[in-house]
Parts: sequence; structure tokens; C-alpha cells
Amino acid sequence: MRLDGAAVLEAGALSSSPDAAMASARELGIARPYPGWREMLAGELALPVGVRMEAVSIVTPNDTHAMIAGACLAAGFDVVVDKPLATSSADCDRLAAAARSAGRSLTVTYNYSGYPLVREARAIVAGGGIGPVRRVAVEYHQGWLATRLEAGGHKQASWRTDPGRTGGVGALGDIGTHAEHLAAFVTGASPIELCAEVRTVVEGRGVDDDASVLLRYPGGSTGTLTCSQVCVGEENGLSIRVYGRTGSLAWRQEQPNRLEFRTAEGLRVLTRGSPGLSSDAADATRLPPGHPEGFHEAFATIYRGACDRVRGIESRLAHLAPTAEDGARGLRFIEACTASKGSWVRLG
Amino acid sequence: MRLDGAAVLEAGALSSSPDAAMASARELGIARPYPGWREMLAGELALPVGVRMEAVSIVTPNDTHAMIAGACLAAGFDVVVDKPLATSSADCDRLAAAARSAGRSLTVTYNYSGYPLVREARAIVAGGGIGPVRRVAVEYHQGWLATRLEAGGHKQASWRTDPGRTGGVGALGDIGTHAEHLAAFVTGASPIELCAEVRTVVEGRGVDDDASVLLRYPGGSTGTLTCSQVCVGEENGLSIRVYGRTGSLAWRQEQPNRLEFRTAEGLRVLTRGSPGLSSDAADATRLPPGHPEGFHEAFATIYRGACDRVRGIESRLAHLAPTAEDGARGLRFIEACTASKGSWVRLG
Amino acid sequence: MRLDGAAVLEAGALSSSPDAAMASARELGIARPYPGWREMLAGELALPVGVRMEAVSIVTPNDTHAMIAGACLAAGFDVVVDKPLATSSADCDRLAAAARSAGRSLTVTYNYSGYPLVREARAIVAGGGIGPVRRVAVEYHQGWLATRLEAGGHKQASWRTDPGRTGGVGALGDIGTHAEHLAAFVTGASPIELCAEVRTVVEGRGVDDDASVLLRYPGGSTGTLTCSQVCVGEENGLSIRVYGRTGSLAWRQEQPNRLEFRTAEGLRVLTRGSPGLSSDAADATRLPPGHPEGFHEAFATIYRGACDRVRGIESRLAHLAPTAEDGARGLRFIEACTASKGSWVRLG
Amino acid sequence: MRLDGAAVLEAGALSSSPDAAMASARELGIARPYPGWREMLAGELALPVGVRMEAVSIVTPNDTHAMIAGACLAAGFDVVVDKPLATSSADCDRLAAAARSAGRSLTVTYNYSGYPLVREARAIVAGGGIGPVRRVAVEYHQGWLATRLEAGGHKQASWRTDPGRTGGVGALGDIGTHAEHLAAFVTGASPIELCAEVRTVVEGRGVDDDASVLLRYPGGSTGTLTCSQVCVGEENGLSIRVYGRTGSLAWRQEQPNRLEFRTAEGLRVLTRGSPGLSSDAADATRLPPGHPEGFHEAFATIYRGACDRVRGIESRLAHLAPTAEDGARGLRFIEACTASKGSWVRLG
Repeated sequence: MRLDGAAVLEAGALSSSPDAAMASARELGIARPYPGWREMLAGELALPVGVRMEAVSIVTPNDTHAMIAGACLAAGFDVVVDKPLATSSADCDRLAAAARSAGRSLTVTYNYSGYPLVREARAIVAGGGIGPVRRVAVEYHQGWLATRLEAGGHKQASWRTDPGRTGGVGALGDIGTHAEHLAAFVTGASPIELCAEVRTVVEGRGVDDDASVLLRYPGGSTGTLTCSQVCVGEENGLSIRVYGRTGSLAWRQEQPNRLEFRTAEGLRVLTRGSPGLSSDAADATRLPPGHPEGFHEAFATIYRGACDRVRGIESRLAHLAPTAEDGARGLRFIEACTASKGSWVRLG
Repeated sequence: MRLDGAAVLEAGALSSSPDAAMASARELGIARPYPGWREMLAGELALPVGVRMEAVSIVTPNDTHAMIAGACLAAGFDVVVDKPLATSSADCDRLAAAARSAGRSLTVTYNYSGYPLVREARAIVAGGGIGPVRRVAVEYHQGWLATRLEAGGHKQASWRTDPGRTGGVGALGDIGTHAEHLAAFVTGASPIELCAEVRTVVEGRGVDDDASVLLRYPGGSTGTLTCSQVCVGEENGLSIRVYGRTGSLAWRQEQPNRLEFRTAEGLRVLTRGSPGLSSDAADATRLPPGHPEGFHEAFATIYRGACDRVRGIESRLAHLAPTAEDGARGLRFIEACTASKGSWVRLG
Repeated sequence: MRLDGAAVLEAGALSSSPDAAMASARELGIARPYPGWREMLAGELALPVGVRMEAVSIVTPNDTHAMIAGACLAAGFDVVVDKPLATSSADCDRLAAAARSAGRSLTVTYNYSGYPLVREARAIVAGGGIGPVRRVAVEYHQGWLATRLEAGGHKQASWRTDPGRTGGVGALGDIGTHAEHLAAFVTGASPIELCAEVRTVVEGRGVDDDASVLLRYPGGSTGTLTCSQVCVGEENGLSIRVYGRTGSLAWRQEQPNRLEFRTAEGLRVLTRGSPGLSSDAADATRLPPGHPEGFHEAFATIYRGACDRVRGIESRLAHLAPTAEDGARGLRFIEACTASKGSWVRLG
Repeated sequence: MRLDGAAVLEAGALSSSPDAAMASARELGIARPYPGWREMLAGELALPVGVRMEAVSIVTPNDTHAMIAGACLAAGFDVVVDKPLATSSADCDRLAAAARSAGRSLTVTYNYSGYPLVREARAIVAGGGIGPVRRVAVEYHQGWLATRLEAGGHKQASWRTDPGRTGGVGALGDIGTHAEHLAAFVTGASPIELCAEVRTVVEGRGVDDDASVLLRYPGGSTGTLTCSQVCVGEENGLSIRVYGRTGSLAWRQEQPNRLEFRTAEGLRVLTRGSPGLSSDAADATRLPPGHPEGFHEAFATIYRGACDRVRGIESRLAHLAPTAEDGARGLRFIEACTASKGSWVRLG
């Protein structure tokens, strides 16, 4: 948020422990600290419009998203929520309905869709640049959970492998849903059936940490999605390749400033910021070509899109920022994978 | 064969058309040309041992492999056969038995296993360098059949998409079997179950041209295998990644002189010919590091292994060259994929 | 600056035109806008200590650096100045002396030294990881000035090729000085002699746009430095390789999250954020491995180092941020290159 | 030679020791072994034309090239000689004259010019694809002589660092001359002046092992050439970049199957064997795209060109194979570098 200066963190409830929340807010110099989110909603509603906060960003563990987001929407605030949007698609649908009826926006931080060249890939597919899609290969391989890190009290590992806080899922909800969103964002299509092999590789772990999924798209196209957090040596290996009738695209999150675009003419490497890219890519670009942008900028682009939404600005950033519907589709994907157990399952 | 000079092409039946066979042999300056393979076997058997050819290399379309190889073995010749070894696993088993009873060797040219760094990867896995394997990701993506090239009379495309000559399969037999062998060669393990989505993407084509396969290995490990000949822009995209409990390996055929090896210590890039590699890799190496080797050398290594076998030389090259058993496993893989139709199938 | 929140832009003179300065400040919501830098100094000095600004960041064209920085130091403010620090080494020396006598800090934004893996490279060299340095190869190739862009009124091109505003130099001062600093930062050594071929390639341009320089280091080591802004297709191609007696390092600005480290043991690829890196690298790191950082973060690291200096915080960031001495060495390098005309010149 | 079968090694003198020569020839199964090259010339001349050898390939240390090649030409044989062609440009000129007057061909094995994509680069430059050349950057960095390997009796290291056998030079003659030829081959231009810093880095070594050279081309273009055999970790790092007015090219020997081609349209990666390449590239190509070719094939292309020359076949391979003139230019380059001692020297 800070990168673009489009929003300022004015109020906050920064921990589930009231004392820690107040201490943390003091440390960050936040103007209106609160001991908890309920107090924050009450306190802000007591302020006049124009003074009170405009929107709430929810970055808590998965199991609290629906409750907090629902309360914020009910109180009339726009919300930005980390993925997965909730722990069930039913909750997602309720949030989507709540947002609609409240006339508030809800943005889900599928942050990888904020990369300019991901947006370029989407624009190329949408513009027919590779013809109808025939095959999608998306994967998200990490290695940081290759051992039972959570047993040693590692904070991130602990909550991300605690079924009570994640909504029962592990890798699927933590990274698989990013892969699903990336594929949907770039191709504009969603699978209608899937067959998933979901495993817990590390002994003693309470959630899945590895999955392989076959995807069937409308019209007979197919895809594969794999996600794993036990791939030793992988850092943050999210990548996508899309093969169409006349061309193909390949993008890797760890080298986000280049996009490979192949057609019968050969291989072109598109670089972020270079002339000739789509306005979707250009609008998400801050620096000239060759000056690497990365994770921060992509995330900031989602936040800026959310800010535009909150303020009713009709921008491409607002248009492309993930919605409650994206969040709901993400949960349906997770639920279908969990239900599959190696058989084909229809996606609602 | 010529690269190493371990064997000389003395006799040959170089076309299914007798006239073309003789003309082609003359052009190549082959000492003993024959109008067909039957004539060649008869003619060579008429020569004294020591003069007659030592072994036969069969590079015909798939549907003739079993017949010719069987006849050669029966006549007492060692054989080298292109993959797939035959058009059914039953035929492969018969050939394997025939070779055993004749006391002759049979080598199948899964040529990609001839690359030094593929052999290094195998040695690392076998030596425990990455711990027990948890996940395998092998893929073979080409794009040359993304259109119906066979309709225009393209020679390679024509027979490779003619079910009568391939044994009914397309991409599975042409490249999928390479991917299967590569995974088995590197990991030393074979899947016990698979679930395959096999498609014909290009309209009017008589064989499959695209497949996605989930693999289950003994002990609960998993894998994915995809092969496709309709991935526009892919040239010869065979690659493998193997993730173990303590490390992982990644190799790409299009950059065969480097092998990525990741452990908790970080990423090391092993280069062909560099000091410290296994003797399996070193024995398959001809040039110093930095002097790129490629497809020819890898193929030649398989031939040299076959030559060693023919001559009873106990070398690592002979030991690692693919056998009739590899060929039979390859056919069982193809048959299982064909039978799967999206359901799980046990591999015999 | 905004990225880390270590400083806030409280006051500003944001254009050489008073009206534009005020308008721009309003747009950015700056608390205390001024029509010019002189007014800013006067206005801030009128405020009590603790309210007035702490330091000034100077991002004007080269020819004004010395004047403004000198005035700021004289007024008792710490300063941060873009490179090149001034238009002559004599001015740099005067600024360095002024800073010393005023007891104020002066930081020059050689921003590329803020990349974590550049700092890792420095730490490796300093720690003897590659042995004594034998050869340095640093280059900075851009292509954006391959045509006479300044003739069309392009704002950046116009002032950067206007000898009156740059201090008479082009590529040497714009990017060559970055390359010089990077080499000195990583190796800890400076050349004692150089031989430079400096050219103006694009006809009609008033400054150099391309240079090749041979470097002689103390002890007989050598190096090459090339910088050019007419290399069509290059975006921001700054890179460095350092070869020592027992190892070598290679880093490219366009892929800043990886550092190649070669020794007799082979090639290791160090990745930003991975365990085992030096504290210099770790202190400059914000995100976990695999979450790309880029240009913004590197620049922010310099600013944070400057902030620490301003506040007397003894951090590695403060220690490594470029100083007036670095700036003066940069100008001596530029002057020597300009004077060389293809002959060897001693560096003071 | 064996790769293409265009020539057969019929006769040979395979060592400077007569016994070793005969033993080695027996081992390789060479039809007509000789104890030395003089005996070979005499013996072959005694055979009738049509039976006797067609041409001689000279792969001895540098100091014997001129003598043997001269004798072969005088005896009426075509010759193929390793680089450098001789130990002085005067000897080269004599050989060129001898070849002309004997009506025999002389081919120098600058083997790196045999790579298809090097030929493509040449064709692109020649066809105006990057406009007039402005800057050349060629380098050849190896690390294998980073220690005094010759002191331990390493065979290759011993003769390559023995001034008596190399003609007084080390890296310049061993690899610098390759870099010089590559640049001339691709650009079609030769420098008219150079300024070279030539060093012996490893103590006790009798020849140079490291050099940096500034180049001036006709018309004001410039270039840099560096070669070194003490760059720890470099394997066979020959690379070239050529920047023209409208585009640029980059090629690396260690990844020879790809050529980067940049213009205002962006970056295209040309791959060996792909459609649309020049006939020069296509004629030097043996395998389909994605099936890596390497060092052997490039070398074989030079031999095939030499064979075509010997037989009077007017092919592109014959046309592009390096000549005595290339060899002479190579020596003039070496001599100029040696003479330079850091000053500018005109090239004859």
C-alpha cells in the first residue's frame, strides 16, 4: 500500500492479542490503534464519515476471513481480504451477496495476478494472440515445508498447517488456489471437471502439502495443476504455460519481468515496460524496462485496484483486481480437489 | 554409430522398396546392400562367422519391429531396435524371451538416457543424494504436429500419425514412452497405477497427440507425466524434475549440458564433463566441459553400449543401455494409458 | 523512501519552476511545499528543531548538485544526492570537506549497491571467498539513446545529453559512474590507471554516449569497463564479473535475485534471501526467497542507510551506503576517462 | 570428420615419436600408418593418384604448422590446419602464396565459425539486419589454466604454455585468435588499430594467459576483446555481442543452439534448425530444432567445407570455411597484441 501512497494505514487491530495489537500499532505509528477488530469497527463507526477509515484490509488466518469480512461489509466498509476468501464456498457466496447488497466492494488479494506480464499474457489470450487454448500447465512448487517445520514452532508453518485455522486445507488453500486463479485469470476459462491426487507427504502433518490435478475445460481443452510445499529446493515456483492453436505463452513468477511468447514466427521474449505491450500491462507498470519490479509491486497493484474500487474510479486496475466471485471459485476448486480422491468431480 | 567408430554399417536394407533400398545403399557406399531385410538375413547367414554382420539395427516404423527383431534373433543376430520396441507388451515379452533363449542381446534406443547428465541424475538418486523420491514431474512437449501436417504428405508426420504403422498410438508411443523411460531410468522406480487423459487435439488425426497422466509409485510417491505434440512453439521439450526428501534434480533435454541439483545447501549447477561427476556420467562423456555435446552423442552412447553388449564387454555403457525389459515396460505404460480413459489403471 | 517508511517527505521544492513546484507538491500532498530550494532552506530553518526537516534529498540535474548540497550542509542539514555527486572532483572534495566540518552526513545514491546479492558478492570477496582478484569485467549497456531522442524533446534524454546540465558528460556520468562504483564496492579496490576510448556515436549529440575502458589495479590486476547508451535492445544491462585466484562471481542487474559463485567445486547459484548469506545481504533483504525484489528495494536500501546515518544509527545499511568519498572517486574516474583519449592516465 | 562421413582417415602419422605413431595408427585401424609426416608424404606420393590420400589434416603444436603445411602443399596435397595457422604472419603469407601457386586449398579450423547460429548472425549482419555495426564485444574466458597445471605434467597444458611450441604466445594464440576470427566472421570487418593489455597472471608461466584489447574499426566503430585462461569457473566461455544501428545480436558458445536478436521490435530468440533462418545456417544444420547440436557438429562443418574445397564443390560450406587469409589475419592480430604493450598499434 505504501509503495504507491494510494492509501494510508490510519487504524488497525494488529494482533489477536489485545496487548500485542496496541503495542504493534504504537510501534508502527498508527493513528488509531484498537485492541481488536470488533473495537475497531465500533470505534470507526463512531467517527464522522470522511474521518473514519474507508476500507479494511484483512490479513488474518483463513478461518476468520468470513466472519470479519462479513462484519465489515455489514458496517458499510469496503474490504480487501487475503486468499482464500473463506473456508467454504458457501461462505464465499454469502460474502459476495453481502457485498452486493451493501454496495461495497470486496477484493481478494490474488497478488500474482498483479504482475504486468501476467496481465499481458491475459491480454494476449483475450485478443486471440495464441488462438483457442488447448492446454494449460500451471504449477506452484515450494520447498519450505519439506520437513515438519511446524513441530518446531515456526510461526508461519504453524498456522498454515493447522487445519483449525486454515479451514482444513494446506497447500491447496495456501498456494493451489493461487495457481487456480492465475490459470483462470490468464485464460479467461475455468475447468468444469477435475481429478485430484491430494497427499500429505510429511508424516504427522495435519493438512495436505502436495497435490496433482487434471483439469477438463469446456470444449475439450485440458490442463494440469500441481502444487506442493515439499519440493526441496523450490523457493516460490509459481509458473504457467498456456498452449493455444497458434501460439503459446510461458511465465515464471521468479523471473516476472519476462514473458515468453511463441508462435509459428518463433520465440519472442516480452519484457516488462517495453513498448507495444497492452494497456493492462502498462497500467500496472511503475519502472522503465530493465529496472526489475517484483513481488511488492505486483501486490501493490492489487491494492491500488482495490483503492480505485473503493473510490469508484473506473480503472483497468480496478477492473482486474480479483473479486468475491474469484474467491468463491477458488474455494469451489479447493473443495472439488478435496472431494476428488483420485476420481473426476464436476465443478459447480 | 559413426561418431565413435565402434561399429561400421557393412550391410543394409535401407528401404521397404527394393529399388530404393539398393539405390540408397549405393549412395551411402555400403559394402553389402540388400533389397530387403529378409534377403539381408539370408545373405549374411550365408557368409562365414567373422565376416557376416555382428548385429542388426532396426529403424523401421513401429509395426514391423517385432517381426524383424524376432527374425534377427532367431537367426542368431544381436539387435538394436528403435522405441517403442513393438506394438504390444505381449510382443515385447516374446522378444525378450527370444533374446534370452537365443543368448543374444536386444537394445532399445531410448536415446535420451544416453546423456551424461541424465546418467548423473540417476547416479545421484541411486546414491541417496536427494533421499527417497517424493514427486516426479516429467514432460515431453513438442509443437510440430500442432497442425495436420500429415494431410500434406509430410513423411515423418504421415507414418507417425498412421495407426496402422505405429500400432495404434501417436504421441504416447512417439514421445510419451521416452518420458516414461527417462523417469524410470533416473528414479529407478516405476509407477504401479496411473490415470491418463489421452486426447486427439487436431481434428481428423487418427491417433492421440496429447496426454496427461497421474502416476502412483510404490510407497505413496506420485508423479505427473505429460506429452503432447500440439504445443505450438515447443521444439523438443523433454524435461524431468525429481523431488526427494532431501534434495531435487532438474534437467532439460534442450540444455543437456547442465543439471540443477538443489539441497538444503542451495542450488548447484552440475556441468557435463566437470570433475566430481559419477563414472556413469564420465563414461558417457567425450568432450571437456564447456564444449557442448548434444543429441548425436547421447544417441551414440546408446549404440556404443549396444556394441559393448554384442561383444560381451562389461562396461557401464553396456549396463545402462535400455533392454527388452525396458521396452516391454514402455509398452505396458502405453497400453495402460490407452486403457485408462481417465480412470486409474494398475500397471502389470 | 516510502517502501520502508523510514522517512516521510514533509517538505519539498519539486521543480525549478516555482509554480510547477507548488502544484506538484499539492498533488503529492506534501505538508510544506516551497517554490524553490532556497525558500525551502530558509523556511525550514525558521522552524524549531524537531519540527523542521531532518535531511534533504537532491534529485536535480548534475550541474546543481554541488550548489544545493553545499547550501544544505551549510544550513546544517544532512543530504542525500543523486550520482554523479557533482560536475568536478574538486567540487566533490569541497562537499566532502563541508560535510565533515558541518558534522553532517552526505550519501550518494549509487543505488545498485543496495541489491542484497551485490552486498553478498562484496562480502564474499572481502572474506577471501574467491581469493585475490585477478580480473574485473563490469559493463553497463543501455539502448534507449541509440537514436537522437533528445531532438524530439524527450525530457530525460534532453537533460541527460545537455552538456550544460550534466557537467559535460553523457554516458560516463549517467551510467559509467554506476559501473565504476559497483566494481569498487564489490572488489574493495580502485584502479590506479585507465585507458579510455570515449565516443559520441549518435551524430549531433553533445555528449559521449559510449565508452570502453581498460583498468589497471594495484598489484597487477586488470579490468575492463564498458558503458554505452546506444546498444540497441539492451534495457538496463549493468553486470559485473569478478575473477579471483580461487573463484569467481557473476551478477546481472536484470536478474538481481541470483548470484553465480564458481570455485573449483563448481557452480553454485546463490539466491536472495536464502539461508547462509552474509548479514550484509540479509540486512538488505525484505522478502523471503523466491519472492522477487527489484530496483525499488535496492534504492530503498540506500535511503534507509542514509536515514540511519542521519539518525546516528550504527547499522550495516549505514556503513555500506555510498559516501562523499565514493562520489569524489566517481568524478575522478569520469575526469580520467574524459582526459584519456586512448592513452593511459593515472587516477589520483 | 567421421560424423558426416565425407572423408575417411586412410593414412596417418599420429605422433612425433615413430613408435607411438605406428602403435596409435594400429589401434585406430588406419589403413596406411606412417612413423612420421615426412614418411607419410613420401609414401603417399609413391601411390597412384586416386589411391593416395586427398588431403592432410595437421593437428600438431603451432610451431610445426608452417613446415608441415608447406611441405604438404609443395607435394600437391590440400591441407587443413589447426589454428593458429603458423607462428608468424610472414609464415602465413608464405603458406597462402604456396597454396595459391600450387592450386591447392588451405583451410584453417576456426571451428567456432561452424556453428549454424554463428553463420546466421553473420548472415543477419551482412543482410543489414542490425544496420551498420557500432560496437563489438567478444570474449573468450576459460579457467582451466588458473593454476600452473603445466608444472604437473598435464599434457595439454604443457605444450600450450611452452613458448617454444606455441610460437611464443599463450592465451592469445590458443583462444584469442578464435575470438578475433569469430568477430571478423560475424561482422565482416576487421579492426585497423588495437590497444592490448597482455599479461601472464600465473607466476612462473612462460606465456601470456590473459589479455584485454580495445579495437578500432574503420568508420569509427569500436570493440573490446578479452581472452583469459585464468578465469576460475569458466569452462569454454566464448561469446560475442554485436550492436548495430538498428539491432543487436548475442551468442554464447556454451548455449550454441540459440541466438538472441534484438531490434526496436523487442527480443527474438532464434533457434537452430527453425524455419526462416538463412541458407548459410540451414546448410550447417544436421538435426531438427530442439535436438541439440554442439562442438562436434560445428567442427565437422569446417571439415566438410574443407572436403568440398578439396573436391571443388561450390558449396556455402566451402565458401565459409576459414582460409589462409583468415589464418594470416589471425597472426597479425596476435603480433599486434604482443607488440602493443598498452599502446595503440596499427594492424597491417
